[in-house]
Amino acid sequence: MDFRYTTEQELFRDTLRKFCAENIEPISREIDEKEDGIPDEIIKGLAAQGVFGLTIPEQYGGTAPEGEELTYANIAIHEIARAEMSMAVPVYTLLCIGWGLLIAKYGTEQLKQEVLPKVAAGDYFVGISTTEPGGGSDIANIQTSGEFKDGKIVINGEKVYISGVLEAYEQRDGGHITLVRTDPEAGHKGFTFVFIPAGLPGVTYTTFDDMGRMALSTGGFTYQDVEVPEYCILGEPNRGFYINMEGFNLARILVASACVGMAEKALEISREYVSQRTMFGKPLAKYEGISFEIAEDHGKLEQIKLYLQYAAWAADMTYKEPDFMTPRQLSRIVSICKMDAPILAADIARHTMMHHGAFGFTRDCPIERGLRGVMSYVVGAEGGHNIQKLIIAREYIGDVAVPYR
Amino acid sequence: MDFRYTTEQELFRDTLRKFCAENIEPISREIDEKEDGIPDEIIKGLAAQGVFGLTIPEQYGGTAPEGEELTYANIAIHEIARAEMSMAVPVYTLLCIGWGLLIAKYGTEQLKQEVLPKVAAGDYFVGISTTEPGGGSDIANIQTSGEFKDGKIVINGEKVYISGVLEAYEQRDGGHITLVRTDPEAGHKGFTFVFIPAGLPGVTYTTFDDMGRMALSTGGFTYQDVEVPEYCILGEPNRGFYINMEGFNLARILVASACVGMAEKALEISREYVSQRTMFGKPLAKYEGISFEIAEDHGKLEQIKLYLQYAAWAADMTYKEPDFMTPRQLSRIVSICKMDAPILAADIARHTMMHHGAFGFTRDCPIERGLRGVMSYVVGAEGGHNIQKLIIAREYIGDVAVPYR
Amino acid sequence: MDFRYTTEQELFRDTLRKFCAENIEPISREIDEKEDGIPDEIIKGLAAQGVFGLTIPEQYGGTAPEGEELTYANIAIHEIARAEMSMAVPVYTLLCIGWGLLIAKYGTEQLKQEVLPKVAAGDYFVGISTTEPGGGSDIANIQTSGEFKDGKIVINGEKVYISGVLEAYEQRDGGHITLVRTDPEAGHKGFTFVFIPAGLPGVTYTTFDDMGRMALSTGGFTYQDVEVPEYCILGEPNRGFYINMEGFNLARILVASACVGMAEKALEISREYVSQRTMFGKPLAKYEGISFEIAEDHGKLEQIKLYLQYAAWAADMTYKEPDFMTPRQLSRIVSICKMDAPILAADIARHTMMHHGAFGFTRDCPIERGLRGVMSYVVGAEGGHNIQKLIIAREYIGDVAVPYR
Amino acid sequence: MDFRYTTEQELFRDTLRKFCAENIEPISREIDEKEDGIPDEIIKGLAAQGVFGLTIPEQYGGTAPEGEELTYANIAIHEIARAEMSMAVPVYTLLCIGWGLLIAKYGTEQLKQEVLPKVAAGDYFVGISTTEPGGGSDIANIQTSGEFKDGKIVINGEKVYISGVLEAYEQRDGGHITLVRTDPEAGHKGFTFVFIPAGLPGVTYTTFDDMGRMALSTGGFTYQDVEVPEYCILGEPNRGFYINMEGFNLARILVASACVGMAEKALEISREYVSQRTMFGKPLAKYEGISFEIAEDHGKLEQIKLYLQYAAWAADMTYKEPDFMTPRQLSRIVSICKMDAPILAADIARHTMMHHGAFGFTRDCPIERGLRGVMSYVVGAEGGHNIQKLIIAREYIGDVAVPYR
Repeated sequence: MDFRYTTEQELFRDTLRKFCAENIEPISREIDEKEDGIPDEIIKGLAAQGVFGLTIPEQYGGTAPEGEELTYANIAIHEIARAEMSMAVPVYTLLCIGWGLLIAKYGTEQLKQEVLPKVAAGDYFVGISTTEPGGGSDIANIQTSGEFKDGKIVINGEKVYISGVLEAYEQRDGGHITLVRTDPEAGHKGFTFVFIPAGLPGVTYTTFDDMGRMALSTGGFTYQDVEVPEYCILGEPNRGFYINMEGFNLARILVASACVGMAEKALEISREYVSQRTMFGKPLAKYEGISFEIAEDHGKLEQIKLYLQYAAWAADMTYKEPDFMTPRQLSRIVSICKMDAPILAADIARHTMMHHGAFGFTRDCPIERGLRGVMSYVVGAEGGHNIQKLIIAREYIGDVAVPYR
Repeated sequence: MDFRYTTEQELFRDTLRKFCAENIEPISREIDEKEDGIPDEIIKGLAAQGVFGLTIPEQYGGTAPEGEELTYANIAIHEIARAEMSMAVPVYTLLCIGWGLLIAKYGTEQLKQEVLPKVAAGDYFVGISTTEPGGGSDIANIQTSGEFKDGKIVINGEKVYISGVLEAYEQRDGGHITLVRTDPEAGHKGFTFVFIPAGLPGVTYTTFDDMGRMALSTGGFTYQDVEVPEYCILGEPNRGFYINMEGFNLARILVASACVGMAEKALEISREYVSQRTMFGKPLAKYEGISFEIAEDHGKLEQIKLYLQYAAWAADMTYKEPDFMTPRQLSRIVSICKMDAPILAADIARHTMMHHGAFGFTRDCPIERGLRGVMSYVVGAEGGHNIQKLIIAREYIGDVAVPYR
Repeated sequence: MDFRYTTEQELFRDTLRKFCAENIEPISREIDEKEDGIPDEIIKGLAAQGVFGLTIPEQYGGTAPEGEELTYANIAIHEIARAEMSMAVPVYTLLCIGWGLLIAKYGTEQLKQEVLPKVAAGDYFVGISTTEPGGGSDIANIQTSGEFKDGKIVINGEKVYISGVLEAYEQRDGGHITLVRTDPEAGHKGFTFVFIPAGLPGVTYTTFDDMGRMALSTGGFTYQDVEVPEYCILGEPNRGFYINMEGFNLARILVASACVGMAEKALEISREYVSQRTMFGKPLAKYEGISFEIAEDHGKLEQIKLYLQYAAWAADMTYKEPDFMTPRQLSRIVSICKMDAPILAADIARHTMMHHGAFGFTRDCPIERGLRGVMSYVVGAEGGHNIQKLIIAREYIGDVAVPYR
Repeated sequence: MDFRYTTEQELFRDTLRKFCAENIEPISREIDEKEDGIPDEIIKGLAAQGVFGLTIPEQYGGTAPEGEELTYANIAIHEIARAEMSMAVPVYTLLCIGWGLLIAKYGTEQLKQEVLPKVAAGDYFVGISTTEPGGGSDIANIQTSGEFKDGKIVINGEKVYISGVLEAYEQRDGGHITLVRTDPEAGHKGFTFVFIPAGLPGVTYTTFDDMGRMALSTGGFTYQDVEVPEYCILGEPNRGFYINMEGFNLARILVASACVGMAEKALEISREYVSQRTMFGKPLAKYEGISFEIAEDHGKLEQIKLYLQYAAWAADMTYKEPDFMTPRQLSRIVSICKMDAPILAADIARHTMMHHGAFGFTRDCPIERGLRGVMSYVVGAEGGHNIQKLIIAREYIGDVAVPYR
């Protein structure tokens, strides 16, 4: 057993922390208020730090530290979220590197050559498009159809609550990995995972107004006879459900990273504030009503942080050692992180806002951005809270615990 | 014992609920997004319902139901918050009728004649100005000074995190009851409570950008040699601290009313949604992960709602029967409401957003406004969370529980 | 609205509190350690206070305050639980007066004359026998059968986790109201409620070793061709399920009374202790880690206490005004009490034990008896925790929330 | 980073688990009910497994795996607590090996030769005697005095709430490491740590009746002119406070191990039960009210379990690499474990009792022993809950957070 990061990992973290503190944190309020996307200099700066290449092999221009991709990605998203607490930049980044890894693993050579170098360079957004109006968590109920025809796959249907719509279609270039039903009779074995690059005829999109994470757009797609070239299919046809689940394992780890990074920073902001602000003649830190809450939150955060490092390490191991554990076994570990991290982060955001009193309710205090942003994951982006419990129950208790079986 | 509202109280509630559902709820999102104050038709409509006169005696144009002022006020704020979940309108209203009651009770005849009829008619805002940059809860530390001079009281100092600045100074007319130090040597016995009408020379103001409650402004005042006529003093000079505490009892009750009303509506919205929305082939309401959480939240909400009615009734009783209980005894009951209602409302907002999944994160779902708005009271407006615990501990355990003594 | 007890109710409470403090509290540890039943002098003393007659009409020797039975019963059980924190005596008493009320309401004249005067005098125990080995909460699944034959009802089957077995069969006299299936085809409409007095041929019993509440026995019955005279039937044949549900409403109120009484006393014991015990040179009450927890617990307890008074009042009202609410509507209110009171009481027992440090773990500190005893209701006596949530969800959300429908 | 146990560690765990399941679990209820100490065959059996030598160097008959002592000890206590859920055996064992390590590190050669081989063989108990009637956590306030005189240290005073009194003085042989004040003027620098073997003239003892952990005695000592030979002093005179703190780090880790082991087993018992027990026609595991609670508890338990392994590893590292971290830095990590593990274990015991319904309240269900036993650590053995928060706050926020400074 060894619980320490390697020297290289620590160096990466420290360098990135410095970059984010100097280049992202100072404009974090501004990008949230402008609601106009993430500035190029942030994306390009992170790309220069190697962040966008962390899951992309070297031959495609990436920086992937072999066998440690998720461990590095966890560090990266954590650090970015510390600096950009609304979570727009961390989420933009985690989508690119989380789902980019799937392209690296399951994409055709042509797709990888076309997409991955641009992702690594920060020029291209990669998102995920799974959810439909009929229900987010009930993936087996997906209606969007794909039909194989003349070397293409023709897609019809509708997706909603998709992150990064304007990013892929307007602000910069990009595309979304999309789950479609290609065999209506085959249940879980009838889905295919297709990358739909922006700009294809037949795609229209709308956007939602959200509570937070204002520099990142959310929206929906309508696909009408959209013809996607076959080289954009990820993995084997009709295996899309399973690849999607594998991708969720990665994305959920990184979502937890963002939550934990934001919460860690919020707690440090409070630590600083309560050490200096006096009330009734003493620093706030002297009041157990405050210091004990910080101690409890710190304790919970340290536990989930370590457990998350374990999840990232375990995910890396599944790629290194095929027998290490199955994606389904990994999902128990990942779902523990995804179940607890957003709620804990929201709790810590609430508590630390409270430590600041009325100041905490103003936009001058960065934590309110954190609370608004993290609510995205509390309500269920990348898999609802109860879905995580269901996965954990299924893996820990057994299939008997699945209520709808 | 009788736990029922009177027929008159029920009629008032039902009529007001109908008014709010028809006139406020449909524009509640718009007024939050516009960030431009509360439309006149809402204020005038509520005034026509008698809401702004609930604590004002008949001779000043009010509708005060004698001996039941707080009971009615609790009903009113609860109902308004159901319809306007961002809580801007409920808070505007509760400030007017909560602090208006203090003017009715402690104001000079001239002040009452000048101010109260306009309050009852919805033409005049009454706010409270206590907090200073040096700390919200530590009232004894207040620096703003008042000097009696030539039949006036001359005020110098600074106040922050004051609700209703633009409302009083720009959008309509109004003023703020202000706590000033008039005898620097006398500790708690050296404060005076003065009503400062908008427009006096020497007052300047700024505003803050907040997380929520966007239709109600928050800001700060700087007073430079502001000369306030003596008839604007509330109660006896140097008794301001005690009158302020009495006013906090009333305002905190009504703050809890707003929180409880918003939460009740959020829970009803969820009840409706989970009964209809299906997942895995069954309505969400069939999943105990959701229905049990609603049951728990409903149970907690019913308890605080009843306890709040008790607090309002007890406050009414203190005015009817002088020996019923002291303001300090009442403060224990009130602080229980203020301690728990905002947190419970924030929890319910969070839970009900979660029931809605990704939709809950959008502004199309009114609950996100509720969460943003209620955070104002979670962080401590009208008295911080820990201050309520301190009051309860002091009253339940005894003075030994006051940490700084 | 009026939230005050009447003068008579207050007098009853004060007199009973004094009696219990002088006569029960001093021997409360002893009766828990002896594990040998409740001493006669306690039972007879409570009877002399009128406690056992609170739900029994005057003509049968009772003291029932007409229309206020549950309100008085709530007071009584609360007071007894304050003095006897292991909850053996409160539970013994609440079973007698809760289920005694059902006999008074649904019993035949002969049954009432035989049983009720002895109950009122404290000479006779009345218990409830519903649960079977196949599952406590799933009442519709009950197997114990009753066959009408020759003016008798012949009973076969098995019941478990029944309170008061030795009390009825050995220590004093008594009997158990028993739910039996009399029409196997008729579902909920095929149950009959029968009073089985101790001593009938064919009844055998066993007992369990429990975690707490040591002065009250728990056990099980086996019925083999037990012939019960028809006059022992409560209400109409095949209406037993509904009468049982009505009885659960009453019993659950009083179970909550016992939990709340115990918790209130535990909190007062802590209040006393932390005011005197010093640590690091200051009374424990000065540490917010302790005083704030007490404030929170006190706040929650005050809310449930008031809500419980409301439930008792509402139950009284259902007997006074037939249209007030249905038993099913009442069950929502009652289940809120039963859902929260045991858990809160267990939490308060835990917290207050913690305030006492290592002393709290010893039997010299009465609170450990409270924690052991209240676990009986936490695990589900008188209806499991989740069953209460199910009832609340069903009544608040609607039938759609019943998972097995 | 590597999160895996070594092959040797896994083998040790598996072998010990088998031993405990076969030899301890079957008699665990009996030893709790008999209240007569831990049977010899258990102690000797554990000694044969090498458990009692885990922290004792080979030359004194131990089995200490060099540099991995705490890691192994954590495994051992965890496994024993799974089998003996009342926690008497785990606590007996952790006291011996936790405080035995201090003797190995700070004892004189003579003391080590006399004591350690007997400890390793399971023939000798080693306990800790710190707490005094004047307050457990306030160690600086300790009154028991030690006077150096004629090559002895003469001790006078009183200690309470000491585990293992009868074990050392009657059931087998043993002694207690005792904190005494040797320089009344020197504050924290005036304490000495002395091992007092059982049987010295002048020592008298009493015992307490406890709520649980019935096979392990708790009591108090009175020392009247007790002459202890100087070779029994641990470390340098007047450094006792610091050595005691170092020992608390070790003991608190192992206390958390016991809590986590007990909780893990309770959850597995529930997992088994809810998979088989049906209600309303379906296994309990199908009800989210139950399965989601298990998922949450499992998630929290997995996090603290991993964090505890980290704490044990960090403690090992402090002995291997002097600059790794200071005892005070380690205390933050350890206190996170000690703060959360007992509470989580008590919560899980409560929840799993609830899953069992009425059966969970009987002694036939082993979990009730777990709840009674773990309350010892909830109330504060080895350092109160709030003390842990204070340590965490002090280390995370800084000295400003110490309230009494």
